[in-house]
Amino acid sequence: MAKMNESFLSLKKSYLFIEIGKRVREYIAAHPDNKIIRMGIGDVTQPLVPAVVEAMKKAADEMGVKETFRGYEDSGLGYDFLRDAVRDYYKSFGVEVKSAEVLISDGAKSDCGNIGDIFSADNTVLITDPAYPVYVDSNVMGGRKVIFADSNEENGFAAMPDKNVHADIIYLCSPNNPTGSVYTKAQLKEWVDYAIANDAVIIYDAAYEAFISDPELPRSIFCIEGARKCAVEICSLSKTAGFTGTRCGYTIVPEELMLKTPTGEDISFYQLWTRRQGSKFNGVSYPVQRAAEAVFSPEGQAQCKAVIASYMANAKIMAETFDSLGIEYTGGKNSPYIWFKCPFGMNSWDFFDKLLNEAEVVGTPGEGFGKNGDGWFRLTAFNTLENTKEAMERFKKLCGK
Amino acid sequence: MAKMNESFLSLKKSYLFIEIGKRVREYIAAHPDNKIIRMGIGDVTQPLVPAVVEAMKKAADEMGVKETFRGYEDSGLGYDFLRDAVRDYYKSFGVEVKSAEVLISDGAKSDCGNIGDIFSADNTVLITDPAYPVYVDSNVMGGRKVIFADSNEENGFAAMPDKNVHADIIYLCSPNNPTGSVYTKAQLKEWVDYAIANDAVIIYDAAYEAFISDPELPRSIFCIEGARKCAVEICSLSKTAGFTGTRCGYTIVPEELMLKTPTGEDISFYQLWTRRQGSKFNGVSYPVQRAAEAVFSPEGQAQCKAVIASYMANAKIMAETFDSLGIEYTGGKNSPYIWFKCPFGMNSWDFFDKLLNEAEVVGTPGEGFGKNGDGWFRLTAFNTLENTKEAMERFKKLCGK
Repeated sequence: MAKMNESFLSLKKSYLFIEIGKRVREYIAAHPDNKIIRMGIGDVTQPLVPAVVEAMKKAADEMGVKETFRGYEDSGLGYDFLRDAVRDYYKSFGVEVKSAEVLISDGAKSDCGNIGDIFSADNTVLITDPAYPVYVDSNVMGGRKVIFADSNEENGFAAMPDKNVHADIIYLCSPNNPTGSVYTKAQLKEWVDYAIANDAVIIYDAAYEAFISDPELPRSIFCIEGARKCAVEICSLSKTAGFTGTRCGYTIVPEELMLKTPTGEDISFYQLWTRRQGSKFNGVSYPVQRAAEAVFSPEGQAQCKAVIASYMANAKIMAETFDSLGIEYTGGKNSPYIWFKCPFGMNSWDFFDKLLNEAEVVGTPGEGFGKNGDGWFRLTAFNTLENTKEAMERFKKLCGK
Repeated sequence: MAKMNESFLSLKKSYLFIEIGKRVREYIAAHPDNKIIRMGIGDVTQPLVPAVVEAMKKAADEMGVKETFRGYEDSGLGYDFLRDAVRDYYKSFGVEVKSAEVLISDGAKSDCGNIGDIFSADNTVLITDPAYPVYVDSNVMGGRKVIFADSNEENGFAAMPDKNVHADIIYLCSPNNPTGSVYTKAQLKEWVDYAIANDAVIIYDAAYEAFISDPELPRSIFCIEGARKCAVEICSLSKTAGFTGTRCGYTIVPEELMLKTPTGEDISFYQLWTRRQGSKFNGVSYPVQRAAEAVFSPEGQAQCKAVIASYMANAKIMAETFDSLGIEYTGGKNSPYIWFKCPFGMNSWDFFDKLLNEAEVVGTPGEGFGKNGDGWFRLTAFNTLENTKEAMERFKKLCGK
């Protein structure tokens, strides 16, 4: 009798974005001619930059010629050309990682979700709340105990560690999804010290690092002394370079990072993770890896930075709107997300429905990211300038005094 | 204290193809100017066909234009254009599946490895031995008990069920990797009946179905009555269309397939698997899905079938060589693999070293696929005609009387 993984029964019923999609589809079905502006799911709207498209097409051509065709990657961990490019990218903001420590994946979500495979069910997982739902869901599926560190109004939605609470695995995300808050170096140092004191591992999600413009803010946890002993960093090209539909990311696993065997001995995280990938993954599409390499070329960097600047111009318009309305928010600087307190004292799903029905703007209810998100709401800066302006005008009409 | 998944300690030390790669690299380092012929790892050598390359380039261009850019896929389960194409492909050999039952992935290895996520550790897994190592490794990682059904000389390397043995999950692969044997409809019916009697699920690996030319042999487990109640089918474009480095596959999950909850009630396999994918996967790259769609176009099918025919011409040359040497083998017909008894009564790693050192041909030691593989050896038909001929000449010199 084939028995299910019973931990799936402990999952919340529906994945946040599926529920949003359902409500939006229903609204569109009832109002097929209206213009909906989507600022909900964190998807980008600008196309891949020319350097990336050219690289992908060139690689596709190579795949069509016997002499340059590529089959299975030897390692499945990424081609050296891309791993070197990521290493050099880190160097550009002052962080030293080895090329071999850069492991290429089909996106941050896959690595975030799959990394639990190498951990015992007998670990306590600390997740900041609110958070990207994959952290909780993948650990619930893995049967691990999940506890939360509150990100809330009082701490500017930047949860800090509590020395009286023990954790074995810690998920951090900065710039934060959904709240847009960004940890300072001093704050991250507190987390690193806490992790080392607990012999814990930090899973650091840096998917939004490219949106940091303030040079004082850390773009990688490896800016922090001691982090190589206690952290892995998961990153993505989805937001950095519009790869949401192209699928490529990377995870940095320092060689010196260790987990514990059942008898308390050290065992290499790198060895366990590459063993997992060696058995359940076969590398990223070669043309996609060439496209990713082009993101890090001087031309690709210039083009991608221009796209990010345009999204951040949207964020500025949004921040100004909330400022003018006197609505409390975090993010909008060094982050493509704005996280604000629902007007009218509404809860976040009710405000979702109001915003959809009365302004035809799609956002994300904060409650979908955790209990501290209730009464809060996320909008993204990933739409076009024109749509962002229009959405903010509608928002002012809906929420202005 | 972050604790490892202790099941990893039960894994065999090294993944088969990593060990082979290591030995080959060492040999090449010592003999840098010699011509090695690789017939080991099941990688293809012919480039992507023109229809596929053109489709990928066209999609890359679409990704560079705002109006046609695609971000996240709504479902992450595959675009309808590709799911429909796979449904129609199945129809072409007489199997009805619904488009919604076709779930697109980045390759059969990922789905094979990840599918364990939805099963309880408390299941007995039956794997035919020898087998593709991912079946065993992913279940060992998941802490499940693994038992084996022997594929051996006596049964033509086509293991059959034993009514006195109970299993909850069954892995079958036909045409088989590594042995090249192909189940008949009558044999598969026995497995389906066995699965239904045990309330078990069959994970059916059909990665090599495109190599079947005999119309009497089943290209899908869904040719068999009852299979929709007890089986999922995992397939890949790696061998069908040379996607080893392009990465795309699909899994067919019938709507009526059920697992059991801890209280013995039915729960939908489809629902569990799509929930898993919804939380740990974000879909396949859009240009890769367009490339995959092109495989199933009339033009793509004609081109891919010509490539497969050329590989099967190699297999014929190999089969004739073994016939002429009087070496016992399976496969070589309806399969790109030939599985033969090591000459000189050698064990399979010793023969691997002899073949590498004395004929400079790389094969795969049968022992790497399980205990019944010892004394047996796998060669693939995926090299070029020229190299296949040369390898067979060398083989004759090495093993001829």
